Amino acid sequence: MKHMFNHIAIAGLGLIGGSLARDIRQLGLAATITGFGRNPERLKKARENGLIDAWHTDSAQGIAQADLIIIGTPVSRIPQQILEILPHVQQGAIITDVGSVKTAIVEQVEQRIPPSVFFIGGHPIAGTENSGFESSVGGLFKNRPCVLTPTDKTDQNALEKVKKFWQAVGAHVVLMDIITHDMIFAGISHLPHMVAFSLVNAVTDMENFEKQILQYSAGGFRDFTRIAASDPVMWRDIALMNKDHILNAISFFEKSLAQLKQSIAAGDAPLIEQFFKKSHDTRRAI
Amino acid sequence: MKHMFNHIAIAGLGLIGGSLARDIRQLGLAATITGFGRNPERLKKARENGLIDAWHTDSAQGIAQADLIIIGTPVSRIPQQILEILPHVQQGAIITDVGSVKTAIVEQVEQRIPPSVFFIGGHPIAGTENSGFESSVGGLFKNRPCVLTPTDKTDQNALEKVKKFWQAVGAHVVLMDIITHDMIFAGISHLPHMVAFSLVNAVTDMENFEKQILQYSAGGFRDFTRIAASDPVMWRDIALMNKDHILNAISFFEKSLAQLKQSIAAGDAPLIEQFFKKSHDTRRAI
Repeated sequence: MKHMFNHIAIAGLGLIGGSLARDIRQLGLAATITGFGRNPERLKKARENGLIDAWHTDSAQGIAQADLIIIGTPVSRIPQQILEILPHVQQGAIITDVGSVKTAIVEQVEQRIPPSVFFIGGHPIAGTENSGFESSVGGLFKNRPCVLTPTDKTDQNALEKVKKFWQAVGAHVVLMDIITHDMIFAGISHLPHMVAFSLVNAVTDMENFEKQILQYSAGGFRDFTRIAASDPVMWRDIALMNKDHILNAISFFEKSLAQLKQSIAAGDAPLIEQFFKKSHDTRRAI
Repeated sequence: MKHMFNHIAIAGLGLIGGSLARDIRQLGLAATITGFGRNPERLKKARENGLIDAWHTDSAQGIAQADLIIIGTPVSRIPQQILEILPHVQQGAIITDVGSVKTAIVEQVEQRIPPSVFFIGGHPIAGTENSGFESSVGGLFKNRPCVLTPTDKTDQNALEKVKKFWQAVGAHVVLMDIITHDMIFAGISHLPHMVAFSLVNAVTDMENFEKQILQYSAGGFRDFTRIAASDPVMWRDIALMNKDHILNAISFFEKSLAQLKQSIAAGDAPLIEQFFKKSHDTRRAI
Protein backbone atom coordinates (compact mmCIF):
# COMPACT_ATOMS: atom_id res chain seq x y z
CA MET A 1 0.00 0.00 0.00
CA LYS A 2 1.24 3.48 -0.90
CA HIS A 3 1.04 5.82 2.08
CA MET A 4 0.67 9.57 1.73
CA PHE A 5 3.71 10.02 4.02
CA ASN A 6 6.37 7.59 5.11
CA HIS A 7 6.67 8.79 8.72
CA ILE A 8 4.48 11.34 10.45
CA ALA A 9 5.74 12.68 13.79
CA ILE A 10 3.29 14.50 16.06
CA ALA A 11 4.21 16.81 18.95
CA GLY A 12 1.39 17.20 21.46
CA LEU A 13 -1.16 14.41 21.55
CA GLY A 14 -4.04 16.49 22.94
CA LEU A 15 -7.49 16.91 21.43
CA ILE A 16 -6.19 17.88 17.97
CA GLY A 17 -2.94 15.88 17.85
CA GLY A 18 -4.58 12.80 19.36
CA SER A 19 -7.56 12.96 17.00
CA LEU A 20 -5.23 13.37 14.03
CA ALA A 21 -3.20 10.31 15.10
CA ARG A 22 -6.44 8.30 15.18
CA ASP A 23 -7.37 9.42 11.66
CA ILE A 24 -3.84 8.86 10.25
CA ARG A 25 -3.86 5.32 11.65
CA GLN A 26 -7.43 4.59 10.57
CA LEU A 27 -6.94 5.91 7.04
CA GLY A 28 -3.40 4.56 6.61
CA LEU A 29 -1.96 7.97 5.75
CA ALA A 30 1.52 7.06 7.03
CA ALA A 31 3.64 3.91 7.31
CA THR A 32 4.89 5.03 10.72
CA ILE A 33 3.38 7.42 13.29
CA THR A 34 5.45 8.59 16.22
CA GLY A 35 4.79 11.01 19.02
CA PHE A 36 7.20 13.34 20.74
CA GLY A 37 6.93 15.89 23.52
CA ARG A 38 7.64 16.60 27.14
CA ASN A 39 4.86 14.51 28.68
CA PRO A 40 5.87 10.81 28.74
CA GLU A 41 2.58 9.81 30.46
CA ARG A 42 0.45 11.02 27.60
CA LEU A 43 2.82 9.57 24.98
CA LYS A 44 2.76 6.21 26.77
CA LYS A 45 -1.03 6.27 26.79
CA ALA A 46 -1.14 7.02 23.04
CA ARG A 47 1.30 4.15 22.44
CA GLU A 48 -0.76 1.79 24.60
CA ASN A 49 -3.87 2.76 22.62
CA GLY A 50 -2.03 1.89 19.43
CA LEU A 51 -2.24 5.41 18.01
CA ILE A 52 1.52 5.78 17.63
CA ASP A 53 4.25 3.25 16.92
CA ALA A 54 6.89 4.84 19.14
CA TRP A 55 7.52 7.94 21.22
CA HIS A 56 10.41 10.16 22.25
CA THR A 57 10.81 12.88 24.82
CA ASP A 58 13.91 14.04 22.94
CA SER A 59 12.60 16.18 20.06
CA ALA A 60 15.74 15.61 17.93
CA GLN A 61 15.19 11.85 17.98
CA GLY A 62 11.43 12.29 17.65
CA ILE A 63 11.61 13.91 14.24
CA ALA A 64 14.85 12.53 12.74
CA GLN A 65 13.10 10.20 10.25
CA ALA A 66 9.86 12.11 9.69
CA ASP A 67 8.74 13.55 6.35
CA LEU A 68 5.73 15.27 7.95
CA ILE A 69 5.93 16.86 11.40
CA ILE A 70 2.72 18.11 12.97
CA ILE A 71 3.01 20.51 15.90
CA GLY A 72 -0.06 20.14 18.10
CA THR A 73 1.42 21.56 21.30
CA PRO A 74 -0.29 24.44 23.17
CA VAL A 75 -0.27 27.49 20.90
CA SER A 76 2.27 29.51 22.91
CA ARG A 77 4.77 26.64 22.72
CA ILE A 78 4.51 26.15 18.94
CA PRO A 79 7.17 28.67 17.74
CA GLN A 80 9.72 27.50 20.30
CA GLN A 81 8.99 23.83 19.57
CA ILE A 82 9.58 24.36 15.85
CA LEU A 83 12.80 26.34 16.40
CA GLU A 84 14.04 23.53 18.68
CA ILE A 85 13.59 20.81 16.08
CA LEU A 86 14.77 22.76 13.01
CA PRO A 87 18.45 21.71 13.25
CA HIS A 88 17.44 18.02 13.34
CA VAL A 89 14.81 17.88 10.60
CA GLN A 90 15.71 15.82 7.52
CA GLN A 91 15.98 17.55 4.13
CA GLY A 92 12.67 18.02 2.34
CA ALA A 93 10.56 17.42 5.45
CA ILE A 94 7.38 19.45 5.93
CA ILE A 95 6.45 21.01 9.27
CA THR A 96 2.90 22.17 9.92
CA ASP A 97 1.04 23.33 13.02
CA VAL A 98 -2.54 23.52 14.31
CA GLY A 99 -2.37 26.75 16.33
CA SER A 100 -5.38 29.07 16.42
CA VAL A 101 -3.16 32.16 16.03
CA LYS A 102 -1.03 32.44 12.92
CA THR A 103 0.97 35.67 12.54
CA ALA A 104 2.95 35.22 15.76
CA ILE A 105 3.87 31.67 14.72
CA VAL A 106 4.41 31.93 10.97
CA GLU A 107 6.55 35.09 11.09
CA GLN A 108 8.91 33.65 13.73
CA VAL A 109 9.31 30.34 11.96
CA GLU A 110 9.85 31.81 8.49
CA GLN A 111 12.69 34.00 9.79
CA ARG A 112 14.65 30.94 10.88
CA ILE A 113 13.71 28.07 8.60
CA PRO A 114 16.45 26.77 6.21
CA PRO A 115 15.55 26.47 2.48
CA SER A 116 15.65 22.65 2.57
CA VAL A 117 12.75 22.40 5.05
CA PHE A 118 9.17 23.57 4.50
CA PHE A 119 6.66 25.13 6.87
CA ILE A 120 2.90 25.51 6.34
CA GLY A 121 0.83 27.28 9.00
CA GLY A 122 -2.47 25.54 9.71
CA HIS A 123 -5.58 25.90 11.85
CA PRO A 124 -8.26 23.21 11.84
CA ILE A 125 -11.56 24.60 13.16
CA ALA A 126 -12.56 21.67 15.26
CA GLY A 127 -11.90 22.63 18.86
CA THR A 128 -14.47 22.18 21.57
CA GLU A 129 -14.41 23.48 25.12
CA ASN A 130 -12.81 20.16 26.00
CA SER A 131 -9.12 19.51 25.58
CA GLY A 132 -6.59 16.77 26.17
CA PHE A 133 -5.89 13.31 24.80
CA GLU A 134 -8.96 11.91 26.62
CA SER A 135 -11.23 14.04 24.41
CA SER A 136 -9.59 12.97 21.14
CA VAL A 137 -11.79 11.09 18.67
CA GLY A 138 -11.57 9.79 15.12
CA GLY A 139 -13.32 11.82 12.44
CA LEU A 140 -13.03 15.12 14.38
CA PHE A 141 -12.12 17.07 11.22
CA LYS A 142 -14.77 15.63 8.92
CA ASN A 143 -16.64 18.42 7.12
CA ARG A 144 -14.91 21.03 9.27
CA PRO A 145 -12.90 23.90 7.77
CA CYS A 146 -9.11 23.80 8.04
CA VAL A 147 -7.36 27.09 7.32
CA LEU A 148 -3.87 26.99 5.81
CA THR A 149 -1.92 30.25 5.71
CA PRO A 150 0.67 30.29 2.90
CA THR A 151 2.91 33.34 2.51
CA ASP A 152 4.99 34.51 -0.46
CA LYS A 153 7.81 32.30 0.89
CA THR A 154 5.69 29.15 0.88
CA ASP A 155 6.75 26.16 -1.25
CA GLN A 156 3.76 25.29 -3.46
CA ASN A 157 4.56 21.60 -3.54
CA ALA A 158 4.64 21.39 0.28
CA LEU A 159 1.41 23.39 0.48
CA GLU A 160 -0.25 20.95 -1.91
CA LYS A 161 0.86 17.97 0.21
CA VAL A 162 -0.45 19.49 3.46
CA LYS A 163 -3.69 20.42 1.69
CA LYS A 164 -4.16 16.83 0.49
CA PHE A 165 -3.42 15.57 4.00
CA TRP A 166 -6.21 17.66 5.55
CA GLN A 167 -8.59 16.76 2.76
CA ALA A 168 -7.81 13.09 3.44
CA VAL A 169 -9.07 13.45 7.04
CA GLY A 170 -12.25 15.04 5.68
CA ALA A 171 -11.56 18.75 6.20
CA HIS A 172 -12.47 21.56 3.78
CA VAL A 173 -9.21 23.40 3.20
CA VAL A 174 -9.38 27.20 3.03
CA LEU A 175 -6.34 29.34 2.14
CA MET A 176 -5.97 32.66 3.93
CA ASP A 177 -3.12 35.08 4.59
CA ILE A 178 -1.93 35.24 8.19
CA ILE A 179 -3.31 38.71 8.94
CA THR A 180 -6.75 37.98 7.52
CA HIS A 181 -6.80 34.78 9.56
CA ASP A 182 -5.93 36.52 12.82
CA MET A 183 -8.43 39.32 12.20
CA ILE A 184 -11.29 36.99 11.32
CA PHE A 185 -10.67 34.67 14.25
CA ALA A 186 -10.27 37.59 16.65
CA GLY A 187 -13.88 38.41 15.72
CA ILE A 188 -15.65 35.08 15.46
CA SER A 189 -13.72 33.02 17.97
CA HIS A 190 -11.48 35.01 20.31
CA LEU A 191 -13.93 37.86 21.00
CA PRO A 192 -16.83 35.52 21.90
CA HIS A 193 -14.53 33.81 24.40
CA MET A 194 -13.34 37.11 25.94
CA VAL A 195 -16.99 38.18 26.23
CA ALA A 196 -18.13 34.88 27.71
CA PHE A 197 -15.38 34.89 30.34
CA SER A 198 -16.22 38.53 31.20
CA LEU A 199 -19.95 37.88 31.38
CA VAL A 200 -19.63 34.93 33.71
CA ASN A 201 -17.34 36.94 35.98
CA ALA A 202 -19.66 39.96 35.87
CA VAL A 203 -22.67 37.91 36.95
CA THR A 204 -20.80 36.32 39.84
CA ASP A 205 -19.56 39.81 40.84
CA MET A 206 -23.05 41.32 41.08
CA GLU A 207 -24.53 42.37 44.40
CA ASN A 208 -26.53 39.65 46.09
CA PHE A 209 -25.01 36.96 43.92
CA GLU A 210 -25.42 33.51 45.40
CA LYS A 211 -24.49 30.22 43.80
CA GLN A 212 -28.06 28.95 43.97
CA ILE A 213 -29.04 31.66 41.48
CA LEU A 214 -27.30 29.68 38.77
CA GLN A 215 -29.99 27.00 38.95
CA TYR A 216 -32.43 29.47 37.39
CA SER A 217 -30.26 30.01 34.34
CA ALA A 218 -31.88 28.72 31.19
CA GLY A 219 -30.39 28.87 27.68
CA GLY A 220 -28.58 32.22 27.78
CA PHE A 221 -26.23 32.07 30.75
CA ARG A 222 -25.71 28.33 30.52
CA ASP A 223 -24.31 28.69 26.98
CA PHE A 224 -21.93 31.36 28.20
CA THR A 225 -20.66 29.24 31.06
CA ARG A 226 -20.02 26.40 28.63
CA ILE A 227 -17.82 28.69 26.51
CA ALA A 228 -16.21 30.08 29.66
CA ALA A 229 -15.32 26.53 30.70
CA SER A 230 -12.58 26.56 28.01
CA ASP A 231 -8.98 26.08 29.12
CA PRO A 232 -7.76 29.27 30.90
CA VAL A 233 -4.10 28.75 29.96
CA MET A 234 -4.81 28.16 26.28
CA TRP A 235 -6.97 31.28 26.12
CA ARG A 236 -4.43 33.34 28.05
CA ASP A 237 -1.90 32.45 25.35
CA ILE A 238 -4.30 33.22 22.50
CA ALA A 239 -5.14 36.58 24.12
CA LEU A 240 -1.45 37.44 24.28
CA MET A 241 -0.48 36.11 20.85
CA ASN A 242 -3.33 37.81 18.97
CA LYS A 243 -3.43 40.84 21.27
CA ASP A 244 -3.91 43.68 18.75
CA HIS A 245 -6.69 42.07 16.75
CA ILE A 246 -8.46 40.99 19.93
CA LEU A 247 -8.24 44.48 21.46
CA ASN A 248 -9.66 45.88 18.22
CA ALA A 249 -12.51 43.36 18.26
CA ILE A 250 -13.29 44.21 21.91
CA SER A 251 -13.47 47.90 20.97
CA PHE A 252 -15.99 47.13 18.24
CA PHE A 253 -18.03 45.13 20.67
CA GLU A 254 -17.89 47.85 23.34
CA LYS A 255 -19.28 50.34 20.83
CA SER A 256 -22.07 47.98 19.88
CA LEU A 257 -23.03 47.36 23.51
CA ALA A 258 -22.81 51.08 24.36
CA GLN A 259 -25.22 51.81 21.51
CA LEU A 260 -27.72 49.30 22.88
CA LYS A 261 -27.28 50.59 26.43
CA GLN A 262 -28.02 54.12 25.26
CA SER A 263 -31.18 53.01 23.43
CA ILE A 264 -32.40 51.18 26.53
CA ALA A 265 -31.62 54.14 28.81
CA ALA A 266 -33.55 56.41 26.42
CA GLY A 267 -36.43 53.90 26.29
CA ASP A 268 -36.20 54.03 22.49
CA ALA A 269 -38.34 51.02 21.52
CA PRO A 270 -37.86 51.20 17.71
CA LEU A 271 -34.06 51.50 18.01
CA ILE A 272 -33.86 48.58 20.46
CA GLU A 273 -36.02 46.41 18.24
CA GLN A 274 -33.98 47.31 15.16
CA PHE A 275 -30.79 46.40 17.02
CA PHE A 276 -32.12 42.98 18.05
CA LYS A 277 -33.61 42.35 14.63
CA LYS A 278 -30.23 42.92 12.99
CA SER A 279 -28.55 40.09 14.91
CA HIS A 280 -31.66 37.94 14.59
CA ASP A 281 -31.29 38.28 10.80
CA THR A 282 -27.57 37.41 10.93
CA ARG A 283 -28.49 34.10 12.51
CA ARG A 284 -30.96 33.38 9.73
CA ALA A 285 -28.21 34.05 7.19
CA ILE A 286 -26.03 31.26 8.60
CA MET B 1 -62.81 12.63 38.51
CA LYS B 2 -61.93 15.59 40.67
CA HIS B 3 -60.11 18.26 38.66
CA MET B 4 -57.74 20.78 40.23
CA PHE B 5 -59.73 23.60 38.56
CA ASN B 6 -63.17 23.61 36.97
CA HIS B 7 -62.32 25.90 34.07
CA ILE B 8 -58.90 27.20 33.07
CA ALA B 9 -58.81 30.04 30.54
CA ILE B 10 -55.53 30.82 28.79
CA ALA B 11 -54.67 34.05 26.98
CA GLY B 12 -51.86 33.63 24.48
CA LEU B 13 -51.30 30.11 23.19
CA GLY B 14 -47.64 30.53 22.28
CA LEU B 15 -44.71 28.42 23.48
CA ILE B 16 -45.64 28.71 27.18
CA GLY B 17 -49.45 28.98 26.94
CA GLY B 18 -49.66 26.23 24.32
CA SER B 19 -47.37 23.89 26.25
CA LEU B 20 -49.39 24.52 29.43
CA ALA B 21 -52.64 23.69 27.58
CA ARG B 22 -51.09 20.38 26.49
CA ASP B 23 -50.11 19.51 30.07
CA ILE B 24 -53.47 20.58 31.55
CA ARG B 25 -55.28 18.37 29.03
CA GLN B 26 -52.88 15.46 29.44
CA LEU B 27 -52.95 15.54 33.24
CA GLY B 28 -56.66 16.37 33.53
CA LEU B 29 -56.01 19.45 35.65
CA ALA B 30 -59.26 21.15 34.51
CA ALA B 31 -62.72 20.04 33.39
CA THR B 32 -62.74 22.75 30.72
CA ILE B 33 -59.86 24.57 28.98
CA THR B 34 -60.60 27.62 26.87
CA GLY B 35 -58.38 30.02 24.99
CA PHE B 36 -58.87 33.71 24.43
CA GLY B 37 -56.93 36.41 22.68
CA ARG B 38 -56.71 38.58 19.60
CA ASN B 39 -55.40 35.97 17.18
CA PRO B 40 -58.28 33.75 15.97
CA GLU B 41 -55.97 31.73 13.68
CA ARG B 42 -53.86 30.49 16.55
CA LEU B 43 -56.91 29.84 18.73
CA LYS B 44 -58.53 27.85 15.92
CA LYS B 45 -55.39 25.78 15.53
CA ALA B 46 -55.29 25.04 19.27
CA ARG B 47 -58.99 24.01 19.11
CA GLU B 48 -58.35 21.79 16.08
CA ASN B 49 -55.48 20.13 17.93
CA GLY B 50 -57.84 19.42 20.82
CA LEU B 51 -55.84 21.51 23.30
CA ILE B 52 -58.78 23.76 24.18
CA ASP B 53 -62.53 23.14 24.26
CA ALA B 54 -63.57 26.57 23.00
CA TRP B 55 -62.10 29.96 22.20
CA HIS B 56 -63.11 33.61 22.28
CA THR B 57 -61.62 36.76 20.84
CA ASP B 58 -63.74 38.73 23.31
CA SER B 59 -61.79 38.67 26.59
CA ALA B 60 -64.94 39.27 28.71
CA GLN B 61 -66.56 36.12 27.33
CA GLY B 62 -63.28 34.26 27.39
CA ILE B 63 -62.87 34.41 31.15
CA ALA B 64 -66.50 34.67 32.42
CA GLN B 65 -66.64 31.11 33.77
CA ALA B 66 -62.97 30.53 34.60
CA ASP B 67 -61.63 29.85 38.10
CA LEU B 68 -57.99 30.01 36.88
CA ILE B 69 -56.90 32.49 34.23
CA ILE B 70 -53.37 32.17 32.84
CA ILE B 71 -51.96 35.15 30.96
CA GLY B 72 -49.38 33.89 28.46
CA THR B 73 -49.45 36.89 26.11
CA PRO B 74 -46.25 38.74 25.18
CA VAL B 75 -44.81 40.30 28.33
CA SER B 76 -45.55 43.93 27.40
CA ARG B 77 -49.22 43.10 26.87
CA ILE B 78 -49.70 41.29 30.22
CA PRO B 79 -50.62 44.27 32.47
CA GLN B 80 -53.10 45.69 29.94
CA GLN B 81 -54.60 42.25 29.31
CA ILE B 82 -55.21 41.74 33.01
CA LEU B 83 -56.70 45.22 33.52
CA GLU B 84 -59.05 44.57 30.56
CA ILE B 85 -60.48 41.36 32.01
CA LEU B 86 -60.70 42.46 35.66
CA PRO B 87 -64.31 43.82 35.45
CA HIS B 88 -65.51 40.49 34.00
CA VAL B 89 -63.71 37.97 36.22
CA GLN B 90 -65.94 35.87 38.50
CA GLN B 91 -65.59 36.20 42.29
CA GLY B 92 -62.82 34.09 43.77
CA ALA B 93 -61.07 33.51 40.44
CA ILE B 94 -57.28 33.42 40.37
CA ILE B 95 -55.26 35.21 37.68
CA THR B 96 -51.61 34.31 37.10
CA ASP B 97 -49.10 35.19 34.40
CA VAL B 98 -45.89 33.78 32.92
CA GLY B 99 -44.01 37.02 32.14
CA SER B 100 -40.24 37.09 32.52
CA VAL B 101 -40.36 40.54 34.17
CA LYS B 102 -42.30 40.89 37.40
CA THR B 103 -42.19 44.34 39.06
CA ALA B 104 -43.71 46.19 36.08
CA ILE B 105 -46.56 43.67 35.95
CA VAL B 106 -47.28 42.91 39.60
CA GLU B 107 -47.27 46.54 40.79
CA GLN B 108 -49.71 47.67 38.09
CA VAL B 109 -52.10 44.79 38.65
CA GLU B 110 -52.11 45.03 42.45
CA GLN B 111 -53.08 48.72 42.29
CA ARG B 112 -56.27 47.87 40.44
CA ILE B 113 -57.34 44.39 41.48
CA PRO B 114 -60.59 44.13 43.56
CA PRO B 115 -60.45 42.13 46.83
CA SER B 116 -62.64 39.33 45.45
CA VAL B 117 -60.12 38.36 42.75
CA PHE B 118 -56.59 37.05 43.29
CA PHE B 119 -53.39 37.62 41.34
CA ILE B 120 -50.16 35.63 41.58
CA GLY B 121 -47.17 36.72 39.48
CA GLY B 122 -45.35 33.79 37.89
CA HIS B 123 -42.35 33.05 35.69
CA PRO B 124 -41.65 29.51 34.50
CA ILE B 125 -38.01 29.14 33.41
CA ALA B 126 -38.60 27.07 30.34
CA GLY B 127 -38.16 29.39 27.39
CA THR B 128 -36.03 28.53 24.42
CA GLU B 129 -34.97 30.76 21.55
CA ASN B 130 -38.06 29.45 19.77
CA SER B 131 -41.50 30.88 20.32
CA GLY B 132 -45.03 30.41 19.08
CA PHE B 133 -47.69 27.71 19.26
CA GLU B 134 -45.73 25.57 16.77
CA SER B 135 -42.92 25.17 19.33
CA SER B 136 -45.23 24.17 22.20
CA VAL B 137 -44.76 20.68 23.65
CA GLY B 138 -46.08 18.61 26.53
CA GLY B 139 -43.78 18.28 29.54
CA LEU B 140 -41.97 21.57 28.89
CA PHE B 141 -41.98 22.50 32.58
CA LYS B 142 -40.88 19.15 33.97
CA ASN B 143 -37.97 19.58 36.40
CA ARG B 144 -37.69 23.25 35.46
CA PRO B 145 -37.91 26.05 38.06
CA CYS B 146 -41.05 28.19 38.16
CA VAL B 147 -40.73 31.41 40.14
CA LEU B 148 -43.83 32.79 41.89
CA THR B 149 -43.61 36.32 43.30
CA PRO B 150 -46.03 36.84 46.18
CA THR B 151 -46.23 40.29 47.84
CA ASP B 152 -47.61 41.33 51.24
CA LYS B 153 -51.01 41.68 49.51
CA THR B 154 -51.02 38.10 48.22
CA ASP B 155 -53.79 35.71 49.30
CA GLN B 156 -52.07 32.64 50.76
CA ASN B 157 -54.81 30.26 49.64
CA ALA B 158 -54.57 31.44 46.02
CA LEU B 159 -50.78 31.23 46.19
CA GLU B 160 -51.04 27.65 47.41
CA LYS B 161 -53.36 26.73 44.52
CA VAL B 162 -51.07 28.24 41.87
CA LYS B 163 -48.10 26.54 43.50
CA LYS B 164 -49.87 23.15 43.37
CA PHE B 165 -50.78 23.79 39.72
CA TRP B 166 -47.14 24.34 38.70
CA GLN B 167 -46.01 21.38 40.77
CA ALA B 168 -48.62 19.27 38.94
CA VAL B 169 -46.97 20.05 35.58
CA GLY B 170 -43.63 19.02 37.06
CA ALA B 171 -42.07 22.39 37.91
CA HIS B 172 -40.01 23.17 41.03
CA VAL B 173 -41.73 26.20 42.53
CA VAL B 174 -39.49 28.92 43.98
CA LEU B 175 -40.89 31.93 45.85
CA MET B 176 -39.14 35.26 45.34
CA ASP B 177 -40.04 38.92 45.85
CA ILE B 178 -40.52 40.93 42.66
CA ILE B 179 -37.36 43.02 42.99
CA THR B 180 -35.11 40.05 43.71
CA HIS B 181 -36.64 38.30 40.71
CA ASP B 182 -36.01 41.20 38.34
CA MET B 183 -32.47 41.71 39.62
CA ILE B 184 -31.51 38.04 39.35
CA PHE B 185 -32.98 37.62 35.88
CA ALA B 186 -31.41 40.86 34.68
CA GLY B 187 -28.10 39.16 35.45
CA ILE B 188 -28.53 35.55 34.37
CA SER B 189 -30.99 35.93 31.53
CA HIS B 190 -31.46 39.47 30.24
CA LEU B 191 -27.77 40.49 30.30
CA PRO B 192 -26.61 37.40 28.35
CA HIS B 193 -29.17 38.24 25.69
CA MET B 194 -28.13 41.91 25.49
CA VAL B 195 -24.51 40.79 25.20
CA ALA B 196 -25.26 38.15 22.56
CA PHE B 197 -27.23 40.60 20.41
CA SER B 198 -24.41 43.16 20.76
CA LEU B 199 -21.69 40.65 19.95
CA VAL B 200 -23.35 39.38 16.81
CA ASN B 201 -23.86 42.96 15.63
CA ALA B 202 -20.27 43.91 16.50
CA VAL B 203 -18.85 41.04 14.46
CA THR B 204 -20.95 41.87 11.42
CA ASP B 205 -19.91 45.54 11.81
CA MET B 206 -16.19 44.77 11.75
CA GLU B 207 -14.00 45.89 8.84
CA ASN B 208 -13.75 43.29 6.10
CA PHE B 209 -16.71 41.35 7.39
CA GLU B 210 -18.18 39.04 4.79
CA LYS B 211 -20.98 36.55 5.28
CA GLN B 212 -18.75 33.64 4.28
CA ILE B 213 -16.66 34.27 7.39
CA LEU B 214 -19.48 32.84 9.48
CA GLN B 215 -18.79 29.36 8.11
CA TYR B 216 -15.56 29.31 10.15
CA SER B 217 -17.36 29.91 13.41
CA ALA B 218 -17.08 26.98 15.74
CA GLY B 219 -18.59 26.74 19.22
CA GLY B 220 -18.18 30.30 20.46
CA PHE B 221 -19.86 32.51 17.91
CA ARG B 222 -22.43 29.91 16.91
CA ASP B 223 -23.77 29.75 20.48
CA PHE B 224 -24.06 33.53 20.52
CA THR B 225 -26.01 33.61 17.26
CA ARG B 226 -28.39 31.00 18.65
CA ILE B 227 -29.12 33.24 21.64
CA ALA B 228 -29.33 36.27 19.34
CA ALA B 229 -31.95 34.42 17.26
CA SER B 230 -34.45 35.09 20.07
CA ASP B 231 -37.56 37.12 19.26
CA PRO B 232 -36.57 40.81 18.81
CA VAL B 233 -39.97 42.17 19.89
CA MET B 234 -40.13 40.08 23.06
CA TRP B 235 -36.62 41.14 24.03
CA ARG B 236 -37.32 44.79 23.21
CA ASP B 237 -40.19 44.63 25.69
CA ILE B 238 -38.12 42.90 28.36
CA ALA B 239 -35.36 45.51 27.89
CA LEU B 240 -37.90 48.31 28.44
CA MET B 241 -39.81 46.66 31.29
CA ASN B 242 -36.72 45.71 33.31
CA LYS B 243 -34.69 48.71 32.20
CA ASP B 244 -33.00 49.75 35.46
CA HIS B 245 -31.84 46.30 36.50
CA ILE B 246 -30.62 45.56 32.96
CA LEU B 247 -28.67 48.84 32.74
CA ASN B 248 -27.09 48.01 36.09
CA ALA B 249 -26.16 44.51 34.88
CA ILE B 250 -24.65 45.94 31.68
CA SER B 251 -22.53 48.32 33.79
CA PHE B 252 -21.19 45.40 35.82
CA PHE B 253 -20.38 43.56 32.63
CA GLU B 254 -18.67 46.61 31.08
CA LYS B 255 -16.42 46.85 34.14
CA SER B 256 -15.55 43.18 33.91
CA LEU B 257 -14.70 43.41 30.20
CA ALA B 258 -12.70 46.62 30.69
CA GLN B 259 -10.63 44.86 33.34
CA LEU B 260 -9.84 42.02 30.94
CA LYS B 261 -9.09 44.45 28.10
CA GLN B 262 -6.63 46.30 30.31
CA SER B 263 -4.87 43.08 31.31
CA ILE B 264 -4.55 42.06 27.64
CA ALA B 265 -3.28 45.51 26.61
CA ALA B 266 -0.69 45.33 29.42
CA GLY B 267 0.26 41.78 28.37
CA ASP B 268 -0.26 40.72 31.99
CA ALA B 269 -0.29 36.91 31.61
CA PRO B 270 -0.99 36.03 35.29
CA LEU B 271 -3.91 38.48 35.53
CA ILE B 272 -5.45 37.22 32.28
CA GLU B 273 -5.14 33.61 33.38
CA GLN B 274 -6.64 34.40 36.78
CA PHE B 275 -9.58 36.14 35.08
CA PHE B 276 -10.29 33.15 32.83
CA LYS B 277 -9.79 30.70 35.65
CA LYS B 278 -12.42 32.46 37.74
CA SER B 279 -15.18 31.92 35.17
CA HIS B 280 -13.88 28.43 34.41
CA ASP B 281 -14.40 27.64 38.10
CA THR B 282 -17.93 29.11 38.09
CA ARG B 283 -18.86 26.61 35.40
CA ARG B 284 -17.54 23.75 37.50
CA ALA B 285 -19.70 24.94 40.38
CA ILE B 286 -22.91 24.55 38.36
